[in-house]
Amino acid sequence: MCHIEASQDKSVRSPVVSGVSKPPRKFAGVVIVTTGLPATGKSQVAYCLSRRLNWNGESAKVMRVSDYRRKRQEPYISNGIFRPDHEASSALLDLAQQDAMQDCASWLAAGNTIAILDAALVTRKQRAEVYEYFSGQLHYRVLFVECVCEDEALIEANCREILRYSQDYKNVQVAVGLEELRLKIAYYRQLHQPMDEPYYPRIRLDTASMEMSAIKLSGHIETTVLGYLGGLSLKPHTLYFSRHGESEFNVLGKIGGDAVLSARGERYAQALASKINSMHIPELRVLTSRLRRTIATARGIEASQEHVAALNELYAGVCEGLSYEEMQEKYPQEFAWRDQDKLRYRYPWGESYVDTMKRVEPVLVELQQSSNVLVISHQAILRCIIGYFCDKLPEELPYEEVPLHTIIRLSSQGFGYKLEFIKMGIECVNTMRQKPQNCSATRTAADALITVPAHYDIPDPWRNPGSGPTLVQQH
Amino acid sequence: MCHIEASQDKSVRSPVVSGVSKPPRKFAGVVIVTTGLPATGKSQVAYCLSRRLNWNGESAKVMRVSDYRRKRQEPYISNGIFRPDHEASSALLDLAQQDAMQDCASWLAAGNTIAILDAALVTRKQRAEVYEYFSGQLHYRVLFVECVCEDEALIEANCREILRYSQDYKNVQVAVGLEELRLKIAYYRQLHQPMDEPYYPRIRLDTASMEMSAIKLSGHIETTVLGYLGGLSLKPHTLYFSRHGESEFNVLGKIGGDAVLSARGERYAQALASKINSMHIPELRVLTSRLRRTIATARGIEASQEHVAALNELYAGVCEGLSYEEMQEKYPQEFAWRDQDKLRYRYPWGESYVDTMKRVEPVLVELQQSSNVLVISHQAILRCIIGYFCDKLPEELPYEEVPLHTIIRLSSQGFGYKLEFIKMGIECVNTMRQKPQNCSATRTAADALITVPAHYDIPDPWRNPGSGPTLVQQH
Repeated sequence: MCHIEASQDKSVRSPVVSGVSKPPRKFAGVVIVTTGLPATGKSQVAYCLSRRLNWNGESAKVMRVSDYRRKRQEPYISNGIFRPDHEASSALLDLAQQDAMQDCASWLAAGNTIAILDAALVTRKQRAEVYEYFSGQLHYRVLFVECVCEDEALIEANCREILRYSQDYKNVQVAVGLEELRLKIAYYRQLHQPMDEPYYPRIRLDTASMEMSAIKLSGHIETTVLGYLGGLSLKPHTLYFSRHGESEFNVLGKIGGDAVLSARGERYAQALASKINSMHIPELRVLTSRLRRTIATARGIEASQEHVAALNELYAGVCEGLSYEEMQEKYPQEFAWRDQDKLRYRYPWGESYVDTMKRVEPVLVELQQSSNVLVISHQAILRCIIGYFCDKLPEELPYEEVPLHTIIRLSSQGFGYKLEFIKMGIECVNTMRQKPQNCSATRTAADALITVPAHYDIPDPWRNPGSGPTLVQQH
Repeated sequence: MCHIEASQDKSVRSPVVSGVSKPPRKFAGVVIVTTGLPATGKSQVAYCLSRRLNWNGESAKVMRVSDYRRKRQEPYISNGIFRPDHEASSALLDLAQQDAMQDCASWLAAGNTIAILDAALVTRKQRAEVYEYFSGQLHYRVLFVECVCEDEALIEANCREILRYSQDYKNVQVAVGLEELRLKIAYYRQLHQPMDEPYYPRIRLDTASMEMSAIKLSGHIETTVLGYLGGLSLKPHTLYFSRHGESEFNVLGKIGGDAVLSARGERYAQALASKINSMHIPELRVLTSRLRRTIATARGIEASQEHVAALNELYAGVCEGLSYEEMQEKYPQEFAWRDQDKLRYRYPWGESYVDTMKRVEPVLVELQQSSNVLVISHQAILRCIIGYFCDKLPEELPYEEVPLHTIIRLSSQGFGYKLEFIKMGIECVNTMRQKPQNCSATRTAADALITVPAHYDIPDPWRNPGSGPTLVQQH
């Protein structure tokens, strides 16, 4: 493998460096630089990479040069700055580039692991300056991700996405905006020097075919990024999610297990199937967990179905099948620990949210590359999957609302996603327990249980012959 | 992204398939097929991939066609079977190929996730048969990893490695063996049809430059493999390991913490520096953890040093700074759980071995690509790192012997590694606690502590004024 040292690269020496450069620090931060012509998808690549890296415990942030340009250009006047005859343009873009680079440096200096510089850098000189600054001066590792696209139809589609979602074109007519973008692309194409510098570690990504090549790669983050890029798709897509119908354990306030649906849960399964079948979603695929309650919920849906263990509910180990009241009684210390840090807490012999975040990654990759998939899974797992696409912080995941008997539609929109909740109007218990105020291990049972949602109690035919279930409510 | 369906690929239809093929199952097993001319490094790629995949929780196994050929050919006669004028050769190789493919299929049918078929497959017809069998008939996903090498010096070096380590050349003189291998390569080159089939998901790896390209990739395992290939180096290499010198916590039998070295630990640091400095290892790099005891141990070594948080000792959470006796007293249930499954057990607010396996991965990638690195770290962490290169099962890691005051040298040898222990002869406590027979939570303290190694007790100046430390031994 080639371990690039800045000092080897004679072609990239800038006047700011004097004397011998030190090699990049192997376990310090990495600067990922997305480069390429406009409308090749590089910003989307930057945001998708950032999302996946953060999911896996890195601290990554995207610095878009165009955001810095907009900041320096208030109030926004015209996009004409990209025309070659615009005099102030090059100075403004240079300043924006400097701003973005400085923020990358500050981000890494603060102890974060990855800065993503989203820039065009169409000339060798521009790339050399960036490489020299981060590698030569600051001794960070640098990885270029070069986005190329020669598919004119895709470039046109990308331009239309830019017109819909970019601040630059908020009040611009489509035809005018498209013409501006065409001019901008033509201008950049004229300046463009294809990336053929021999020493930069880099990945070349054809955003039309998604074919890739990797040159001079080394290091854990760089090779991880390579794998992540292989799992991308930049096409707009729509995904659907639902929890299983209400289960008999939900009714009793019990966690985990492999219970069947309650009567109301069965009604939801029918309603879900009617609704989804009536939507005639083209090439619909259904993924469920391997537990009975999700498989039963999917039963009536007319589509190919796959049962995936990675979609099983967070495994509660020694607490499987207990209600919160029983957990508080049997394991008060564990119950308190879970409330203190629900994200990282792992049930004895069970899982934590962090464990499940990792476990669902194969599904995330599949969903990232797919459209028209309905995922029928469980509360904790759907919190993770939907939270991933909505860029939730890990700490937020365990308290996200994913109610029973609701279809959730997630549609891509620019670099982000739009979320819609479709309530099916079939009654069910609420399974959402808020974090209580008192999380100390010495709290009273009443304090520990104050946020447990209402559920039914197990009927005791010996004590109350002929009795039905009773509603238990903590407050 | 391109989701290949076997039925789309008209060029790869074999007589065994009738009717329409089903698409590969998205969450079923994957067959990775390493292909290429002899001595391009494909078996080493196969074994390195398998090691990393298994480390990350997959169940991967390499089936080498040449192993199956040797099995069918007992007693081994001559390598002349590769000569084009050898009549029986092609039938024998076909049978070996079938054997390997069937074992791949059985491996996946048994619920494992990845089968790696290590074969040459130099013709389009051979590749089509493999693809049709696994994708068309069995509906598994298939990923080709094509190894190419045009560097004649590297091919020659690879041939010499084959002569040293392959069963085929055990009793063959080097000159004779080299001539045989040259003939074999020439024969295969003559048959070789470069891989240009348009529909197979594949990665092309130049094993000389380690440059890669990826075509038609999709799926989590496939893209993960892409990242892993980016972190490979096939060059022979040597690594060195040492635990920190004995610390004051070691002396007292305490776990975790950030204690300084004992007087004996300081003596080891000096001895280690003298020894390593006298070895004049070229371009030596030292990696330590960020804890005081490893940094102090490295102090006298003349080499560049980097302090890496990923090398810190397994974090024991609420048990940091306790002795095993104290842990048994305060948390008998936790102590028993740890003994029941030391690999997966996670200290409350701390880590498990599985957690640290994940945490050291950036270091593993760096070490995989490096030679002449000395890693100064801690018992649990070195168990993981050394265990990785020695293909230990995860279950074995928590009980591997990594004694104090010992230099460990690890040198690549064929597809595996050789391990040497260099004892420095400086007295120290033993920190290795064997798994006790009784791991039940209801065991007595004596049963729980029976395997705790001897250590010193904290002197109590109030009870025994002027006393030194006392040796505590459980049995």
